[in-house]
Amino acid sequence: MSLRPTLDFLLYDWLHAESLNERERFADHSRETFDAVLDTCERIAREKYAPFNRIVDTQEPHFDGEKVILPQATHDAHKAFVESGMMSAAQDYDIGGMQLPYTVQAAANAFFAMASVSIGSNMLTSGNANLLMVHGTEMQKEVFAKNEFSGRWAGTMCLSEPQAGSSLSDVATRAVPDGPDFQNDPLGPRYRLTGNKMWISSGDHELTENIVHIVLAKIPDENGKLIPGTRGISLFIVPKRMVDTRGNLTGERNDVALAGLNHKLGWRGTTNTLLNFGEGKYPVGGKAGAVGYLVGQPGKGLHCMFHMMNEARIGVGTAAVMLGMAGYHASLEYAKTRPQGRPAGPAGKDSAKPQVRIIEHSDVRRMLLAQKAYCEGALALELYCARLVDEQKTGTPEAADDARLLLEVLTPIAKSWPSEWCLEANSLAIQIHGGYGYTRDFPVEQYWRDNRLNMIHEGTHGIQAADLLGRKVLMEDGRGLTLLGGRIADTIRRAAAQPALAGHAKSLGAALQRIASATKAAWATGNPQEALANAVPYMQAFGHVVLAWIWLDVAERALEADAAKSQPATAGRVGATDFFFNYELPKIGAWLNVVESRDPTCAALPEEAF
Amino acid sequence: MSLRPTLDFLLYDWLHAESLNERERFADHSRETFDAVLDTCERIAREKYAPFNRIVDTQEPHFDGEKVILPQATHDAHKAFVESGMMSAAQDYDIGGMQLPYTVQAAANAFFAMASVSIGSNMLTSGNANLLMVHGTEMQKEVFAKNEFSGRWAGTMCLSEPQAGSSLSDVATRAVPDGPDFQNDPLGPRYRLTGNKMWISSGDHELTENIVHIVLAKIPDENGKLIPGTRGISLFIVPKRMVDTRGNLTGERNDVALAGLNHKLGWRGTTNTLLNFGEGKYPVGGKAGAVGYLVGQPGKGLHCMFHMMNEARIGVGTAAVMLGMAGYHASLEYAKTRPQGRPAGPAGKDSAKPQVRIIEHSDVRRMLLAQKAYCEGALALELYCARLVDEQKTGTPEAADDARLLLEVLTPIAKSWPSEWCLEANSLAIQIHGGYGYTRDFPVEQYWRDNRLNMIHEGTHGIQAADLLGRKVLMEDGRGLTLLGGRIADTIRRAAAQPALAGHAKSLGAALQRIASATKAAWATGNPQEALANAVPYMQAFGHVVLAWIWLDVAERALEADAAKSQPATAGRVGATDFFFNYELPKIGAWLNVVESRDPTCAALPEEAF
Repeated sequence: MSLRPTLDFLLYDWLHAESLNERERFADHSRETFDAVLDTCERIAREKYAPFNRIVDTQEPHFDGEKVILPQATHDAHKAFVESGMMSAAQDYDIGGMQLPYTVQAAANAFFAMASVSIGSNMLTSGNANLLMVHGTEMQKEVFAKNEFSGRWAGTMCLSEPQAGSSLSDVATRAVPDGPDFQNDPLGPRYRLTGNKMWISSGDHELTENIVHIVLAKIPDENGKLIPGTRGISLFIVPKRMVDTRGNLTGERNDVALAGLNHKLGWRGTTNTLLNFGEGKYPVGGKAGAVGYLVGQPGKGLHCMFHMMNEARIGVGTAAVMLGMAGYHASLEYAKTRPQGRPAGPAGKDSAKPQVRIIEHSDVRRMLLAQKAYCEGALALELYCARLVDEQKTGTPEAADDARLLLEVLTPIAKSWPSEWCLEANSLAIQIHGGYGYTRDFPVEQYWRDNRLNMIHEGTHGIQAADLLGRKVLMEDGRGLTLLGGRIADTIRRAAAQPALAGHAKSLGAALQRIASATKAAWATGNPQEALANAVPYMQAFGHVVLAWIWLDVAERALEADAAKSQPATAGRVGATDFFFNYELPKIGAWLNVVESRDPTCAALPEEAF
Repeated sequence: MSLRPTLDFLLYDWLHAESLNERERFADHSRETFDAVLDTCERIAREKYAPFNRIVDTQEPHFDGEKVILPQATHDAHKAFVESGMMSAAQDYDIGGMQLPYTVQAAANAFFAMASVSIGSNMLTSGNANLLMVHGTEMQKEVFAKNEFSGRWAGTMCLSEPQAGSSLSDVATRAVPDGPDFQNDPLGPRYRLTGNKMWISSGDHELTENIVHIVLAKIPDENGKLIPGTRGISLFIVPKRMVDTRGNLTGERNDVALAGLNHKLGWRGTTNTLLNFGEGKYPVGGKAGAVGYLVGQPGKGLHCMFHMMNEARIGVGTAAVMLGMAGYHASLEYAKTRPQGRPAGPAGKDSAKPQVRIIEHSDVRRMLLAQKAYCEGALALELYCARLVDEQKTGTPEAADDARLLLEVLTPIAKSWPSEWCLEANSLAIQIHGGYGYTRDFPVEQYWRDNRLNMIHEGTHGIQAADLLGRKVLMEDGRGLTLLGGRIADTIRRAAAQPALAGHAKSLGAALQRIASATKAAWATGNPQEALANAVPYMQAFGHVVLAWIWLDVAERALEADAAKSQPATAGRVGATDFFFNYELPKIGAWLNVVESRDPTCAALPEEAF
């Protein structure tokens, strides 16, 4: 079973991705070049990722005292990915990129996430390099970003600390100027960093000759104090090994030491580390302190990071989707071949008859269709968001601004919704396998474990919800919500003309109105404590409305493109839409009840009553 | 943090367990003897189970070619449990039991499930022995059951086969009479069994000198054919090592061979096996075929098993509850000590202030209160069901019959509801821990993995749902549902008089009516295919109504017992009730929609459209 037909339909029939070549940046592209990229990634994922997904789970990274050891498969997968050119696919031709639309890049990367989500951490490297391309000096781009795009070096993002996870304003890593000439280093203003960074993915390994850490740290004020809050945060490049201006290793190690590997529930192919910066284990020039080069302005570190936040969150959302999809495909195949039991007839079961395949049981079909509705719907949402990223970058000024604002509102959903519901899909995939699904002989238990990370990293569920209800739906006088409402209304109008979808169009209209009134009710008292007490149920309802909209739009397009309704895929898309509207959308009532009443039950309970 | 106050309240204040000593069987008991049992079990669980829960997860059972090796901790825990006398706690004095009410036994066993659910499999041994006490001959009781109760031997239940998991009617293990004198064996009619049994917990180990397998198999008819369906199933005792009539090992091995260990996602402390019966590896008397002694009548095997089904399912439900509870306690403790972030005030966050403990964030409180509502509510339900078991065994004929019928209806909920919602509680416990919760340095990820089994074994979610909607609510002209409705109405009446609960009482009344009408609507066409297509959503809604009832009853009793409302525990119980009614009960609407409309979306989708 291939992902490709679904991807092709969403990319070309639904999002009209090939029309992007009308834009100057993508003028050399065509459906043929897009297909060639998809073909290549599908093949690498099939050959270098999928066969080793269990191996990277069982052969966890370990530290031999000097080096972090990873399975050979991880080295091979990294090499194949780098050679495909996907690391810099979206970059300009003149630095070796393909000027590929992000929409197509995101679709292509979906193959890797589905085949083995944790074997690669290329998203971090390209994200790191992308950030430097926007905020770095020419020298920083040349030395650091280009060597990351080429795959020679890898990149990390060092944000969290043991005491500062969700609360980045509490970052305590210090950066002090490195000598009186610190401003004059050609690689950027040179500082010495000391501090501990936690949860650093790919923080140490031997996949590449060097690792480029991008590190959040605070520059103390004249009294040696760190400025509280996020205003004090600056951004630094801290290479694992020191380099010169031509990108050669100097032979000296920078003062960044592996303090420990985190042993995780899943996602084990990716090394996750605690790093000590500047503890003196590897003094540079005889002096303790990790050498770091300032990126952008002091105190603007988080601002620089925000630049890449949307893409990172779409990336996490896509990873969650593709884990869900992997479980859906595995359980669908199992259901089509596993014989067990017989359906109940009017006269009970006839045990003299042979057993049927379990896909013939209606409850198994319910679990399959739920997975399809969750995962294919969420994939459509991720691609829609990716298309907005392209619009933001290459659209007319007005379209770009609309895309920017829509992305602000949709990104918390694109990140959180699949992390919750495609995890649920993975649980259903286990359930369809019965006892076998609970064993490590089948892949579905690993998908479920791997997927549990996605509600945590890159901003927890709670953080996404507070961002959505506390900031995104309010910003610019609620224009983002209005814009989204306009797009949804447009879909409703078109779907209302399709007899098979008219009822759903009406339901979506009512749901949209309810979201609008719940948003108002949440903020009726203007007190953030009251409004945000039920931010997660709000986000759950908001997400379900967004997914209902996406499905209605997809189904409308499917029926339009296949007017004779002769293709099974069309029946599948309409069926998944029916499922979502009949089984899922009605859930918003329960979530919005507590939002609308600003239910104080949880906030008000005395601590000793728990 | 101790489970004991919650358990004490539920047992004594709510269920009035000490009044059981008014019954002849329990006349020697009192609150003091019950407390002594609880004390002992709490202590053994604390000392011999909890400290080794991670060890049994990491040191999985393995086979060295001769023996299955388990960690020393498992041997120690088994020894301590056996010495406590809990294996035969509910049995008569004259066979060494305590004549303990099942209610108290279930409460005491909760400590072990919470401390380390997989280290022991004592429930299987006592369940096996209980079955023999009811259906075995005097000799079978004497030789097999008594040696299990004493802990000298262990027991298993061998039902499933690789091709017959949920569909037991497809059991293919054959049992043929062992020689012309097969009827005359003092241990029971002697057969030779051949077949493969899958998913056999504790199927092989060295914890005890022998293992007593209870095996489902079919006796071929005169043409050598197996009778299709469950009618052909008989029950056999198949010891791992042959024994004489005095319970001594004869020194001969029976023809039962370990064919493989299952490597599971969780619950790893318990060996899970594929066993080959009669493959000839260990011929008995020079002849292949596992020697088995018939229990009860031929063809009545499933009937004998049903006897212990309710208790086994309550046991699985309780295990799910206690895993949830373990996560709740762990995350509550973490939330009370982990500093992170600051609540948003009207003027935003003041980052100059110190961080607060995360229990001060309303979303963390929501996740804690959800866990409390799920787990303490479900514990109350399990104990309520256990109390019904005692009523069925020792009540007046009328009360016993009502208890039997109520148990028929409630058991699918007692088994399925915690396996779904206390698993969700475990996920929330991970979420509260953030990244730390995703590591194996904290216990919560293991609880989540362990708990995933409970929706699968002892009848999957789908099987429970079909049992509830297809059999239990219909049987005896729906009298079970009527009885339950009466109990719920009684709670509603009492709660309506409490101002704090009157609103909830009204909501519960409406929910109960909706269940009744949904049940009718599901069966309106009389077609099981249509009625049962949405059996799982029906069960989910039914379960939420049952839990709402349980919470309302618990809260009503808590307010009654603490009229001054001065105890934090009372505020906690009322708060959890408020949570359940405001956040959870409204979910039934979405589930029942599809039941009432007999939604055909899943059943009707063509296979090629998935």
